[in-house]
Amino acid sequence: MHFFFYPSSVAVFGSFKRGAIAYEILRNILEGGFEGEIIPVNPKGGEVEIAGNRIDIFKTLEKSVDVAIIAIPARFVPPLIEEIGDKIKGAVVISAGFSEVGNAELEKELLEKAKEKGVRIIGPNCAGIFGVHASFFGSFEVRVNKGGLALISQSGAFGGAALAMGNEEGIGFSAFVSYGNAADLNESDFLRYFADDANTKAIALYIEGVRDGRRFMDALKYAAQKKPVIILKAGKSKSGSKAAQSHTGSLAGSYEIYKAAFTQSGAIEVEEMEELFDAAKVFEMYAKAGKRVAIITNSGGPGVLATDKAEKLGLEIAELSKGTIEELRSFLPPQCSTKNPIDLIADADYERYKRTIEVVAKDENVDSILVICVPPIFIPSEEIAKAVMDAECEKPIIVNFMAGELVKGGVELLEKHGIKNFPTPERAAKALKWLTLRE
Amino acid sequence: MHFFFYPSSVAVFGSFKRGAIAYEILRNILEGGFEGEIIPVNPKGGEVEIAGNRIDIFKTLEKSVDVAIIAIPARFVPPLIEEIGDKIKGAVVISAGFSEVGNAELEKELLEKAKEKGVRIIGPNCAGIFGVHASFFGSFEVRVNKGGLALISQSGAFGGAALAMGNEEGIGFSAFVSYGNAADLNESDFLRYFADDANTKAIALYIEGVRDGRRFMDALKYAAQKKPVIILKAGKSKSGSKAAQSHTGSLAGSYEIYKAAFTQSGAIEVEEMEELFDAAKVFEMYAKAGKRVAIITNSGGPGVLATDKAEKLGLEIAELSKGTIEELRSFLPPQCSTKNPIDLIADADYERYKRTIEVVAKDENVDSILVICVPPIFIPSEEIAKAVMDAECEKPIIVNFMAGELVKGGVELLEKHGIKNFPTPERAAKALKWLTLRE
Repeated sequence: MHFFFYPSSVAVFGSFKRGAIAYEILRNILEGGFEGEIIPVNPKGGEVEIAGNRIDIFKTLEKSVDVAIIAIPARFVPPLIEEIGDKIKGAVVISAGFSEVGNAELEKELLEKAKEKGVRIIGPNCAGIFGVHASFFGSFEVRVNKGGLALISQSGAFGGAALAMGNEEGIGFSAFVSYGNAADLNESDFLRYFADDANTKAIALYIEGVRDGRRFMDALKYAAQKKPVIILKAGKSKSGSKAAQSHTGSLAGSYEIYKAAFTQSGAIEVEEMEELFDAAKVFEMYAKAGKRVAIITNSGGPGVLATDKAEKLGLEIAELSKGTIEELRSFLPPQCSTKNPIDLIADADYERYKRTIEVVAKDENVDSILVICVPPIFIPSEEIAKAVMDAECEKPIIVNFMAGELVKGGVELLEKHGIKNFPTPERAAKALKWLTLRE
Repeated sequence: MHFFFYPSSVAVFGSFKRGAIAYEILRNILEGGFEGEIIPVNPKGGEVEIAGNRIDIFKTLEKSVDVAIIAIPARFVPPLIEEIGDKIKGAVVISAGFSEVGNAELEKELLEKAKEKGVRIIGPNCAGIFGVHASFFGSFEVRVNKGGLALISQSGAFGGAALAMGNEEGIGFSAFVSYGNAADLNESDFLRYFADDANTKAIALYIEGVRDGRRFMDALKYAAQKKPVIILKAGKSKSGSKAAQSHTGSLAGSYEIYKAAFTQSGAIEVEEMEELFDAAKVFEMYAKAGKRVAIITNSGGPGVLATDKAEKLGLEIAELSKGTIEELRSFLPPQCSTKNPIDLIADADYERYKRTIEVVAKDENVDSILVICVPPIFIPSEEIAKAVMDAECEKPIIVNFMAGELVKGGVELLEKHGIKNFPTPERAAKALKWLTLRE
């Protein structure tokens, strides 16, 4: 399946009128900086202008390529696969109008032609794929930053929205695949593939239902053993499950069975879209952590909120060793609290944060550190960001710089250095909780 | 207490060197467009330059004013109150160094002087106050937009962070008060005041602990009867409660007692900072709603996620009447689902959204509507925003336009028209849940 996400050559089939699906995909591939060969194909030929470049449109595919991306009317797809099948390894079928609208026959025909020719199919009725480390953006969805998350989405629209929101959350992606009707390749294949993909640190999976539970369970176990697999299951409630059935045509099945499968396989189930992002963020940074958290803050209130949430989630507020407390006492102003949560008070600067992080990081009773920063008085938030970056610390550090605009500089600096920000104390505490699930 | 939030004249005491607390407060008051008299006072006199204006600093307060804002060293505060007490109605004491650092005597002295002179005190050790409808920004915290939320915060730093984050969330504020050590006025006084303030639609309260439980309970009941009171309680867990005690010096008390008080009084307790914002947003728009929700979406997946969350929270997925379904069938393309959640599919445009909202709004089985929009294909999100704005609908509408940058135009347009966006399906469903708690 490697050729799908690291192709050396791609052909795109469809209309290249400005705004048409194939045009948008071609534009994304070109603008995304794909360095392999790109061949637009349309029986009418002609040329297409994208970003100032004029590119010839081929009337037929003459050369062999790794991947064909197909956005032509559904009924023409099976004949096209027959025609070009010998020249391609795989096809991403964007076109809708198959089993999802009751046209199961056409989908069967597509699959038969593909099998005949030894072509693997993603889709039909999907939003396409990204192989981000190959700069390959084979989808009309918004391009994303390079990173460690592989996003597998049954719903194209959910996937597209998640990519755009992921950009805002500072997530880096290794790959994206929307698999639509899953005529051939499905969630189980992708789980196994990304489990072995060196650029993928964590896998996020959005599913409504799966067809082959046994195969899914095996793939999930395989993947979750190798790296964190974060799952958002839609169709958990009675009405939601009914809606998912009518929406995807797949049997959603009992949620209890899914839930048990997630737990048994060691996958991490999240309940909300936002949690999917937060879990992805934390697993892009760290593989795991123990339960004993030290909280370092420059404001009491947010420190207490983080403490409440951490304890509610079953984390432990680490009991600092006597040595740690003595060392903290030696340089912190007397108004500071040296009990966990450690309150550095409002005028905490670079030095106070950095030294505290380093002292706490050495404590054997501490597994991970949560650093909270409300806008410091008289000190730019960048200074505190630098303290986090510069501190010698081998343990996972989660940061919660809060107050939007007021800490923007600090947050941007952190993100440039691969430290992702969690905007509230509670979301930061939840992030630490997920890390403990991999311990 | 009206004079605190709608003052006609204000004096500020402290250092007016650039960057000093009093300077920052004076700047905020001036830049915020306060139209009453503003008198900076410092025994050294001189002048201060702010935003191109040179303003004389008075050596003493000669005139009477409504409010004095005091940011001078703690030990000088009681004598100052004695000196100016006859000329002021109330004082906001920003200065720290009282009971929170063990200096209970000084705080007692402050209170005695104030009582002698009939002066009401907010603070000490607080971040100040805003009376937004009087354009009065008597705090060094970031200024906010005018609206319906009164934020009462025991923690100044929490309050400041919440104001900045509230700006990003599109919340409008009527007032803000950080009451610090609560030597005189406390949470109960503010609850009662904002319950009767015409510009306040909802009250948000951040507390760690209260001193007089009976008085708090009465004030909470009074306020919650008049308008939504949203509470974020910090210090709920064992470790959190201990940390809150050492932080505020107040007894946090058993969380179970607080919880019971919140429930009995009809206040709405939220568990996370983000929920505080979301509840504030929804109550700025609507007073209440029934349980039966209709979900309208242009993408199946997010519709299912909203359905799951709504049902989990005890809302009902409204069963649409036969008449509604027939009317929807009459104009919707056949691929659309006319069962709730109603799926308008990817190419849904202005007309399809608007008509659907209007038809569903008339259904007697529907109490509220959740409108979901992922980035529409070939249609700017502004068009869908307009459909929501233009649709004739008497029932609460909650919107979830998702995908950050891609729906920014639509979200901005909605917010200009007072319709606040909830960024995920789950957060939108939670917002609807809070509305039902006031039904």
